[in-house]
Amino acid sequence: MSRLQLADSGLTLSGGDYTIVGVVAVVAIIALAIAFVLRKEVLAAGQGTPKMQDIAKAVQEGAAAYLNRQFRTLAIFVVIVFVLLFFLPADSIGERIGRSVFFIIGAVFSAAIGYLGMWLSTRANLRVAAAANESEGGREKAMRVAFRTGGVVGMSTVGLGLLGASLVVLSFAGQAPKVLEGFGFGAALLAMFMRVGGGIFTKAADVGADLVGKVEQNIPEDDPRNAATIADNVGDNVGDCAGMAADLFESYSVTLVAALILGSVAFGSQGLLFPLIVPAIGVLTAVIGVYITKARPGENGLSAINRSFYISAVISAVLCTIAAFAYLPSTFAKLNHGISDGGNPALIAAVAVIIGIVLAAIILWLTGYFTGTEHKPVKTVGETSLTGAATVILSGISVGFESAVYTAIVIGAAVYGAFLLSGSVAVALFAVALAGTGLLTTVGVIVAMDTFGPVSDNAQGIAEMSGEVSEDGAKILTELDAVGNTTKAITKGIAIATAVLAATALFGSYVNGAGLDVVASNVNAAFAVFTPSTLVGLIIGAAVVFMFSGLAINAVTRAAGAIVFEVRRQFRDNPGIMDGTVRPEYGKVVDICTRDSLRELATPGLLAILAPIAVGFGLGVGPLAGYLAGAIATGTLMAVFLANSGGAWDNAKKLVEDGNHGGKGSDAHAATVIGDTVGDPFKDTAGPAINPLMKVMNLVSVLIAPAIVALAAPDAPQAIRIVISIAAVVVIIAAVVVSKRRSTSIADSPAETVANGVG
Amino acid sequence: MSRLQLADSGLTLSGGDYTIVGVVAVVAIIALAIAFVLRKEVLAAGQGTPKMQDIAKAVQEGAAAYLNRQFRTLAIFVVIVFVLLFFLPADSIGERIGRSVFFIIGAVFSAAIGYLGMWLSTRANLRVAAAANESEGGREKAMRVAFRTGGVVGMSTVGLGLLGASLVVLSFAGQAPKVLEGFGFGAALLAMFMRVGGGIFTKAADVGADLVGKVEQNIPEDDPRNAATIADNVGDNVGDCAGMAADLFESYSVTLVAALILGSVAFGSQGLLFPLIVPAIGVLTAVIGVYITKARPGENGLSAINRSFYISAVISAVLCTIAAFAYLPSTFAKLNHGISDGGNPALIAAVAVIIGIVLAAIILWLTGYFTGTEHKPVKTVGETSLTGAATVILSGISVGFESAVYTAIVIGAAVYGAFLLSGSVAVALFAVALAGTGLLTTVGVIVAMDTFGPVSDNAQGIAEMSGEVSEDGAKILTELDAVGNTTKAITKGIAIATAVLAATALFGSYVNGAGLDVVASNVNAAFAVFTPSTLVGLIIGAAVVFMFSGLAINAVTRAAGAIVFEVRRQFRDNPGIMDGTVRPEYGKVVDICTRDSLRELATPGLLAILAPIAVGFGLGVGPLAGYLAGAIATGTLMAVFLANSGGAWDNAKKLVEDGNHGGKGSDAHAATVIGDTVGDPFKDTAGPAINPLMKVMNLVSVLIAPAIVALAAPDAPQAIRIVISIAAVVVIIAAVVVSKRRSTSIADSPAETVANGVG
Repeated sequence: MSRLQLADSGLTLSGGDYTIVGVVAVVAIIALAIAFVLRKEVLAAGQGTPKMQDIAKAVQEGAAAYLNRQFRTLAIFVVIVFVLLFFLPADSIGERIGRSVFFIIGAVFSAAIGYLGMWLSTRANLRVAAAANESEGGREKAMRVAFRTGGVVGMSTVGLGLLGASLVVLSFAGQAPKVLEGFGFGAALLAMFMRVGGGIFTKAADVGADLVGKVEQNIPEDDPRNAATIADNVGDNVGDCAGMAADLFESYSVTLVAALILGSVAFGSQGLLFPLIVPAIGVLTAVIGVYITKARPGENGLSAINRSFYISAVISAVLCTIAAFAYLPSTFAKLNHGISDGGNPALIAAVAVIIGIVLAAIILWLTGYFTGTEHKPVKTVGETSLTGAATVILSGISVGFESAVYTAIVIGAAVYGAFLLSGSVAVALFAVALAGTGLLTTVGVIVAMDTFGPVSDNAQGIAEMSGEVSEDGAKILTELDAVGNTTKAITKGIAIATAVLAATALFGSYVNGAGLDVVASNVNAAFAVFTPSTLVGLIIGAAVVFMFSGLAINAVTRAAGAIVFEVRRQFRDNPGIMDGTVRPEYGKVVDICTRDSLRELATPGLLAILAPIAVGFGLGVGPLAGYLAGAIATGTLMAVFLANSGGAWDNAKKLVEDGNHGGKGSDAHAATVIGDTVGDPFKDTAGPAINPLMKVMNLVSVLIAPAIVALAAPDAPQAIRIVISIAAVVVIIAAVVVSKRRSTSIADSPAETVANGVG
Repeated sequence: MSRLQLADSGLTLSGGDYTIVGVVAVVAIIALAIAFVLRKEVLAAGQGTPKMQDIAKAVQEGAAAYLNRQFRTLAIFVVIVFVLLFFLPADSIGERIGRSVFFIIGAVFSAAIGYLGMWLSTRANLRVAAAANESEGGREKAMRVAFRTGGVVGMSTVGLGLLGASLVVLSFAGQAPKVLEGFGFGAALLAMFMRVGGGIFTKAADVGADLVGKVEQNIPEDDPRNAATIADNVGDNVGDCAGMAADLFESYSVTLVAALILGSVAFGSQGLLFPLIVPAIGVLTAVIGVYITKARPGENGLSAINRSFYISAVISAVLCTIAAFAYLPSTFAKLNHGISDGGNPALIAAVAVIIGIVLAAIILWLTGYFTGTEHKPVKTVGETSLTGAATVILSGISVGFESAVYTAIVIGAAVYGAFLLSGSVAVALFAVALAGTGLLTTVGVIVAMDTFGPVSDNAQGIAEMSGEVSEDGAKILTELDAVGNTTKAITKGIAIATAVLAATALFGSYVNGAGLDVVASNVNAAFAVFTPSTLVGLIIGAAVVFMFSGLAINAVTRAAGAIVFEVRRQFRDNPGIMDGTVRPEYGKVVDICTRDSLRELATPGLLAILAPIAVGFGLGVGPLAGYLAGAIATGTLMAVFLANSGGAWDNAKKLVEDGNHGGKGSDAHAATVIGDTVGDPFKDTAGPAINPLMKVMNLVSVLIAPAIVALAAPDAPQAIRIVISIAAVVVIIAAVVVSKRRSTSIADSPAETVANGVG
């Protein structure tokens, strides 16, 4: 078993190799061009009445203002990390500069894709509402615009991800791995902040709007008299659209980065290029997927989307297999690298990619089963509404736990299956990463599916607020919204799977980079892995996931309290609002959401970056490996649990609203509304943020591992190590204390007592 | 670094050694004698009115009937395991027989202590109610009887645990470690079943009684017209008393077992004896603790209990330090064993024990902070009741997450602190185990504190049902009940800490036993720990904790549904019940609870035993190590999360009932009632069962490790390994499917629609 050499592999690319990377870069640019074409198509659609346009404009301005302010805040942060990255060990000055520069590029790409998602969806929502309002073929047109919007974001995500990675390989060749770490870290870090910030914004606005509107004043959702209603719609765009797009871009990039890092070790230069070929094929099939999605007459929108997913997955599998056998040799002896393995590289690569594609399909099905209204789990949660909110909560938690277990085991089986493909650890790790790239081939369609959700949701909001959409049009939008709910849950499942595969591959590269793979002369380091100190690291890793989730949920409760206070104030100070004679100050609520989200994202963000630093420098590389393993295992379960119990509650509410168990207004409905409100921060704030969290923590560990090893050497000044660790702990504690000192809860601003339900 | 030799250490005990063990055995018997004396005192107290005695008798009969039936069911199981244990590898026939026989003894002791806890508390509850009813000094008398009852159970727990361990050492000397594995496994296995079965019984009865009584019929808790009310009181005794007593006995035994297993390796024969001396000192201080507990006039009961805890903890620390320096030498050279370490054995041992004692004190404080009514967390949960049930649930979950993180980090710090005491891994592991024995010195008082809870709860039930306790008496009982709520939460925190320390020590011995500590010649095994396959094991380990929790919560919901159905039937078929002219058929409900609890405990129980078998034989010893590590980390967090969020909800309800935020009957009250109902299966079924779960899984792994290693050898028939693994998986799946097929939820038997709250 050879020690993986992750630093400069001394690899040089041939002219033919450069041609291939060049072709991949061109494919990436084609993807961006297609996105541009689709974008024109979306923008060309009709924009409805002036009142609808007015509302959309308010949402556009609010969302843009939030993201601009968020980017300004994060810019300072990005610059600090840029400088810090410079001081971490590297093999050459070129690598050092490349790593920092591509960190910025990764962050900028991530931000750009998020901004694009927000920009387009705040324009598409209006057009979907207008299309649904058309008397002839409204349903098909609305669905088409919504899905095309998703197509733009999807093609841009894969295009930018592939472009970034191929640029790194073109510019740095053998030094690419270290530079790619910077690129992936930039993408993951920004995505995490956008997920957390956007997630807090969207749910604070949603919960706050519902608490005052639905519960206290008894006015419907999206009623224009509610001052928080624009903020609620802005939230959908900055959270579900911008945050999600950045998140999936990050998943795409980091998985690709992991594959590229491990590929050259396992397969030589062909291992560096094959992981680029697979997603390039994915671009092609994504285009097919986006263009063939068309609901047959009377068919459910979800069936149409699922069909194109499965078709493009099958095409991907076939093409990737052909590519593997065409490009890779049938024995390892023919690869230009140091690993000897009895297997067939082409076969290993093909099977690994197929494992990833099959995994995506299983998760699609599994998530649909646990969160769809037509299956037993959600039906059971719906039934328990007859015995009240407590049983709704308990059954939803059970569904979440159970689905998390099955999803985790399926992901684990995929990892294990890929790992079993080779007896050589280097090749096996690469196979895991390749399974990740297999998953990537589906990302284009997945992003398109996901964007569908918030766009439909917002279209419904605009229709409701303007009051200018016909009853038929409203019905169409309700149907699309329900489809969007399920696709959103599916995306989260896929995102978590990419997170585990990428994290596992990165974990492998961390372990090897940190010298934990133990050569015979180094029994002490080996032992470190089994000792209680590693277990302590593991417990801390698992604890950080709990802490992060708790902080995110708490932040939503706190921010929602501020919204409640402001909306109540407006109703009180300005009775004309309730009469409909005075327009509420929407902007004020958007401002509060913006301010609070940006303030609240600091603590979980710092925790994610500093906790691995504290553990790594304080306890050593062995416990840091334990830390990562603990975070991956608990993170996977927690992320799926939060996403799926939230999805199940949401759809159980829909079941009741569709007339089951007493329908709208019944006690059963009130019980499911409570379940849904509990699920809101679960599924849209804490749950999805765990995905980038896992990757940020892994990449921080990979980046600092050489520094830890250097400082742990007997002749190094031990004090520095301890000082760094203590400083990190102090900053974390300070951040937690500061966020606790803030106005603590909704209860700090109760103007009146509020009843049970919160919508 | 020497390879730990856990099999027959070839250790022989000297005559002086035997004298010491003999003295320890005598101390154990003295503890039992004191328990007997205290028991007489409790039974001598006044028994109240004939009506009160009638009710108590019904509870006594129901509880005895349940436990008898449970023991009959489990007996078959115990016999099967007894036989299976015989076939696992052992070094000699004596060890083989000893392991199986002491497995039975461990199981019988565990059952006996549980039975005793139930037997006495079903008699003490009546006497506490009667004492509270006395006009003169009722409060002091009631508290005294309740705490003396706890003393009986506490002294019996430590007495039997110490007796069992010292008997093994007396009989098997150097072969003791393997035999102790059997003893610990028996204790842990039975405790797990009693925790799960009792936990399901008590919460099914509680939730079922409240759903029909409080919510549908609007009659108070413990109203004699409710057919489930006797079952509810039976549940307190079989769950909170019997289950908890068995659980703490198991914690005591397994921690002791871990210390004894590791002690001889680290310190030679003195290492085998010192872990017996520490808890023997604990017996002495527990006696002091029990006898000095007396509330000063006007003082809160909890302060009195806390005071005796702290006093006895300080005495323990002092005496243990003296014992360490008196008994252990100051250099390792003077110990009769093979380890060379520059440290001072006496100092290491003393500090390790003190770490354990300090850990107990910190957890006592931490749990009190997060679940006590006078601190910020519970107050915040109470305040969020103003904005409805959803915010109550969210804030309770946040409190649970947060407290889990701090508790896990404190426990992790204790493990790390103990581990740092020596550079030698063998000594460091022993130090972790010794910290566990330090915790044990507090167990006597802790059990006494815990038993206090259900006894007071039941006394209140008897007072309410009989209607023959004065208003002053009722007030006293309410106060005692509230104190009991907090002491119950504290016990769970301490139990989880012992679980982690014991599991870490056992994990260490597993890793070494399985040959994973890697000698230079065995790099493959070393690598196994870092590979994705270990990570997959880790994910599965974490997943099993989620699965187990979900199964337990689901079982309660299912069983509660059956109770609801039966109570409704009785009200419907027999209108005289509501008038109070006809006595409801209490026995029927007890029977249903008994049947369902015994049926429901099979699936989680099988999961706990078979999952490590499936992973170990299927994936190998490396992934099994990962499995255990994942289960320990996630289990710790999950157990504390479930216990403390449940505790916080319970006390938030009490806060509102005490007149805050609108008081009883307000919307805020209804919101906290929902929180409390969600918390019921969290804190009393799923949460506490994770503690024995962790130890059962660890002991199964330790026991099967040699068999896995033997079957993984190249010349062994690989098919056997795979067949065993697949068989285990098949049984688990079958068990899960069978339990899913059962009447699925409360909603299957709704006679009428029920409103939001469930008490």
